[in-house]
Amino acid sequence: MSVARSPLPHFYSVIPAGGVGSRLWPLSRADEPKFLLDLTGAGKSLLRSTWDRLMPLTGPERTFVVTGYTHRHAVETQLPELQSANKFLEPSPRDSTAAICMAAALIERRDPDAIIGSFPADHLIVNDREFRRVVRQGIRAAEMGYLATIGIRPSGPSVAFGYIQSDGLVDESVSEEIFHATGFVEKPDEKTARAFLESGNYWWNAGMFIGRASLFREQLAKTHPRMEQGIRHIADEWGSVARYKTKDREWASLDKVAIDYAIAEPSAAEGRVAVIPGDFGWDDVGDFAAVARHIRDNSIGDLAILGSDARVISDGTSGIVVGNTKRVIALIGMKDIIVVDTPDALLVTDSSNAQRIKGIVGALRDGGNGDVL
Amino acid sequence: MSVARSPLPHFYSVIPAGGVGSRLWPLSRADEPKFLLDLTGAGKSLLRSTWDRLMPLTGPERTFVVTGYTHRHAVETQLPELQSANKFLEPSPRDSTAAICMAAALIERRDPDAIIGSFPADHLIVNDREFRRVVRQGIRAAEMGYLATIGIRPSGPSVAFGYIQSDGLVDESVSEEIFHATGFVEKPDEKTARAFLESGNYWWNAGMFIGRASLFREQLAKTHPRMEQGIRHIADEWGSVARYKTKDREWASLDKVAIDYAIAEPSAAEGRVAVIPGDFGWDDVGDFAAVARHIRDNSIGDLAILGSDARVISDGTSGIVVGNTKRVIALIGMKDIIVVDTPDALLVTDSSNAQRIKGIVGALRDGGNGDVL
Repeated sequence: MSVARSPLPHFYSVIPAGGVGSRLWPLSRADEPKFLLDLTGAGKSLLRSTWDRLMPLTGPERTFVVTGYTHRHAVETQLPELQSANKFLEPSPRDSTAAICMAAALIERRDPDAIIGSFPADHLIVNDREFRRVVRQGIRAAEMGYLATIGIRPSGPSVAFGYIQSDGLVDESVSEEIFHATGFVEKPDEKTARAFLESGNYWWNAGMFIGRASLFREQLAKTHPRMEQGIRHIADEWGSVARYKTKDREWASLDKVAIDYAIAEPSAAEGRVAVIPGDFGWDDVGDFAAVARHIRDNSIGDLAILGSDARVISDGTSGIVVGNTKRVIALIGMKDIIVVDTPDALLVTDSSNAQRIKGIVGALRDGGNGDVL
Repeated sequence: MSVARSPLPHFYSVIPAGGVGSRLWPLSRADEPKFLLDLTGAGKSLLRSTWDRLMPLTGPERTFVVTGYTHRHAVETQLPELQSANKFLEPSPRDSTAAICMAAALIERRDPDAIIGSFPADHLIVNDREFRRVVRQGIRAAEMGYLATIGIRPSGPSVAFGYIQSDGLVDESVSEEIFHATGFVEKPDEKTARAFLESGNYWWNAGMFIGRASLFREQLAKTHPRMEQGIRHIADEWGSVARYKTKDREWASLDKVAIDYAIAEPSAAEGRVAVIPGDFGWDDVGDFAAVARHIRDNSIGDLAILGSDARVISDGTSGIVVGNTKRVIALIGMKDIIVVDTPDALLVTDSSNAQRIKGIVGALRDGGNGDVL
């Protein structure tokens, strides 16, 4: 064994890069989804930031990306180091279980002892080093046989996230950071969220899962056996000449189901989920109110500005303006405003209505305005 | 005298067409001022509507327009019937006294018995017939030697308008609509405006003045004798080959002063102002909150829409959106919003801040964004 070898030879990163991010319309579009965007003025996309964050753990050799054919070119442009053997192109969106278990199956064929960590391509993390330290704790839990998840320490009683409940440490002698998860809770109401916060036993579910590749296979076989067969079939023919035909046929038959329902919750019910609390400045930047919180460099008073070409004039306005054009944008006396100005679509709302943007996207589709989606 | 002759042979209309209407930026611009805009979706501009409203009174033969050289082409396009002898092109803006007294001087040379009525080019009037009936009362007052003004019956305690105070009828036997004006009052505070409303002796000053052409000359000679000489000099050379040179030289020396200060108030102090109450649906459409009130035909719920090409999607939004582009404009949960979307500038504010737009225009000029003014 050479000294240059990675300390984590069996650990593989998986980045499922899917989802439009409808609540960020009109910045996010079907052909320019959230993960391809630079939402903070960092100079790189959320996908590229996710990739860079994982490099010290898995390098290009052991970092997988699962994305749609539609986004192939953009992803390859943003990630020139992505190896073609580590890239799975989905013929159509089939939700997170298909994406992650597909990657797990391909990785397990390469390395039967593999541990995979799946990290969404479109989240924001401030402290990359602390993130990796927490992931390493997750890998330890995975080595112990757990499906490890990262629980974000709540900074307030958020109703925008699901929660993970814990009843204490797995084994104090092994680690004081690996907790036993009793279950997952859907987005709560505000009263419940306050109770969660006070109890100290609940963390936000950030959708990050670390476990043996074989564990994903075993659990999927229990909950969705047809799906597990289909994925195994695709993986078996990987590299053969017949692979595209098999892939297209089998993929279309896979269930659309989130990893939380197909793998995480059933595993928790079996007592096989661990949670590692994380505190590294995480946000899923799910709406523009969240985007506004993370733009630091470019602002006029309390008005955050995203878009270097935007010519913004503010008179007593707070909130966020996203300027994708070179137009002058004048804002007067608005509180917590959200203005998103793109060449073919303009959105005006405020932070209290940020979550309703998703509904507008549906109305646009139904109203014959699909050209701007 | 032929029977086809107008019943008002000595009455002339003057339309001073000036002023950008900064509070309507970015719809109004230096090269597309308020009076050239269609602010209600009526299908014609405020200037054209003003012209059409006056035609039954004075026809093209006795309707004058005073405007800037800059707007010559647009005015001639909108008013093809405007006779060149009835058109005065200002070398530079010199406020309303210069514009109106210049027209008065030219008209008096043509008809020493002329009575002129000056009506702003950029106001909105709903009931044209009632307007003309009130103007005819004003002409009667002018024939009696008064400077007649039209006082709009207040529909509320507005602080956006100046007021005209009256102490009763001029002569009950002559008319029960011609009141004696004791003076003009600047825009009041709200408490004062409420007191005005309750007293019943105050009307809004709509900036409309009717009087003998000679009266304007005589009053100007008293308050601004140099100005009166300059205007007379220009009028004397009107039609001669030397006129342009004289006009340019004399015009530049004229004071910039509003007709209210130079003519109306001094005349009121002499007891020579009459006021005719008018109730014909008047608005100076001074800001977008006012524009919103007058758009009836095109709306989504409480959201008024100006611009036939605008693709507007509203989810629980009230106010006004002006769409000068073909972009999709999506508005969610905003109250009394004002959105003005033009190809090179976007404004977002709400009705409570509509009056602050003027300040933004100054900030744009000072901030190197003069290209969008």
